[in-house]
Amino acid sequence: MSSPKNIQQLIAEQIDFFRIAISVDCVLFGFENNEFKVLLIKSDLEEFRDKWSLLGDLVRPDENLDSASYRILRERTGLEDVFLEQVYTFGDVHRHPAGRVITTAYYSLVDIRDHHLKLEHYQLHWHPVKDITTLAFDHKTILDTCIRQLQNKIEDHPIIFNLLPEKFSLRELQCLYEAILGQKVDRRNFRKRFFQMDWLLDLNELEQNVPHRPGKLYQFNEARFKEAHKNSL
Amino acid sequence: MSSPKNIQQLIAEQIDFFRIAISVDCVLFGFENNEFKVLLIKSDLEEFRDKWSLLGDLVRPDENLDSASYRILRERTGLEDVFLEQVYTFGDVHRHPAGRVITTAYYSLVDIRDHHLKLEHYQLHWHPVKDITTLAFDHKTILDTCIRQLQNKIEDHPIIFNLLPEKFSLRELQCLYEAILGQKVDRRNFRKRFFQMDWLLDLNELEQNVPHRPGKLYQFNEARFKEAHKNSL
Repeated sequence: MSSPKNIQQLIAEQIDFFRIAISVDCVLFGFENNEFKVLLIKSDLEEFRDKWSLLGDLVRPDENLDSASYRILRERTGLEDVFLEQVYTFGDVHRHPAGRVITTAYYSLVDIRDHHLKLEHYQLHWHPVKDITTLAFDHKTILDTCIRQLQNKIEDHPIIFNLLPEKFSLRELQCLYEAILGQKVDRRNFRKRFFQMDWLLDLNELEQNVPHRPGKLYQFNEARFKEAHKNSL
Repeated sequence: MSSPKNIQQLIAEQIDFFRIAISVDCVLFGFENNEFKVLLIKSDLEEFRDKWSLLGDLVRPDENLDSASYRILRERTGLEDVFLEQVYTFGDVHRHPAGRVITTAYYSLVDIRDHHLKLEHYQLHWHPVKDITTLAFDHKTILDTCIRQLQNKIEDHPIIFNLLPEKFSLRELQCLYEAILGQKVDRRNFRKRFFQMDWLLDLNELEQNVPHRPGKLYQFNEARFKEAHKNSL
């Protein structure tokens, strides 16, 4: 074992290690017209002209990672109070043409109809996830990682209720699950499972103005979810 | 919207952003004498003399994040083929006294009795998690984050079977859960839940040489877990 070093020695020895930049990429998911979507922006780098990319920026020297993610969200979409969750950090040596740039991905589920969402001034667009085959940088990999995280999460966490209006039908809920999972689910099992989980509050109301037999409307029962989760073991 | 930049312009404008170092911290958990433990090392920095820290190192300029985590594990413990999972990246501006150092935490569950584990040459020690009140840097926060991730995971993922011998009793399994959760669980509910989940294979064998009534021995049934997980929605 070598003798203890102090910080100054460490910096002097490892100055070549302090040449990295870190960025944050925000993956914003939404749900519209029965489609699972992600918010993308036209890349502003000549090297990626006409490619779409995630909403990201370099973290400033005096800025925490989390603060950077909220700044990017605010600057690009006007959203202030959306919950962002850190998902994964991508650090492959050659992932960015400008040098060593490591990026931390955050994701969020937002209501596309939210009136606070201001996209007019930017080259931003909601893309159906299933149609995306390529993105700038390694952003397709980042997107796929966030989708997998969400897919793993929706079985046990009520996170996706953020994507639905306050009152929704089981048909809408199932449609959302299928869009995120990218596959059909069995209607009977799906309903059975949801009633077993006891997450839903029956509002004793029916859908209105729908082109099919009106379904019952439900609300997510957060209190009951928390109670159930607390006692699960 | 500003006009497109090329990479060289970006670098020139943002040179101050490329002054960050990134480190990787490996949080190794183990289970021994009914205690949930984590592997720590005496800090080799004078500033943290006599403090314990997680196993970490700076990522080299030509090294991917994942490669760095495996290198650190190999150099410090001799372990080659252990699964490491990335948990979270900590990037607060002032978290490291040597400058801006962002760290990505990985965790792993290892068998303390594994004969490949070589700790002789290092100031390494398995600490009971419940006794740790302080660590160097922000490593206590990192440790707590990894524990929370593990606590969330053990209800749905068979990850903790890595900590048990191949054959184990329900008593041992419950003891491990309680050690990780940091609280007692109800014996009856615990057993009921495990049989419902159908993860266990009854070996039709009994424990031997135990100071209590011998319990039945079980094995984790990976095939059945995978099948159940596939069809869960």
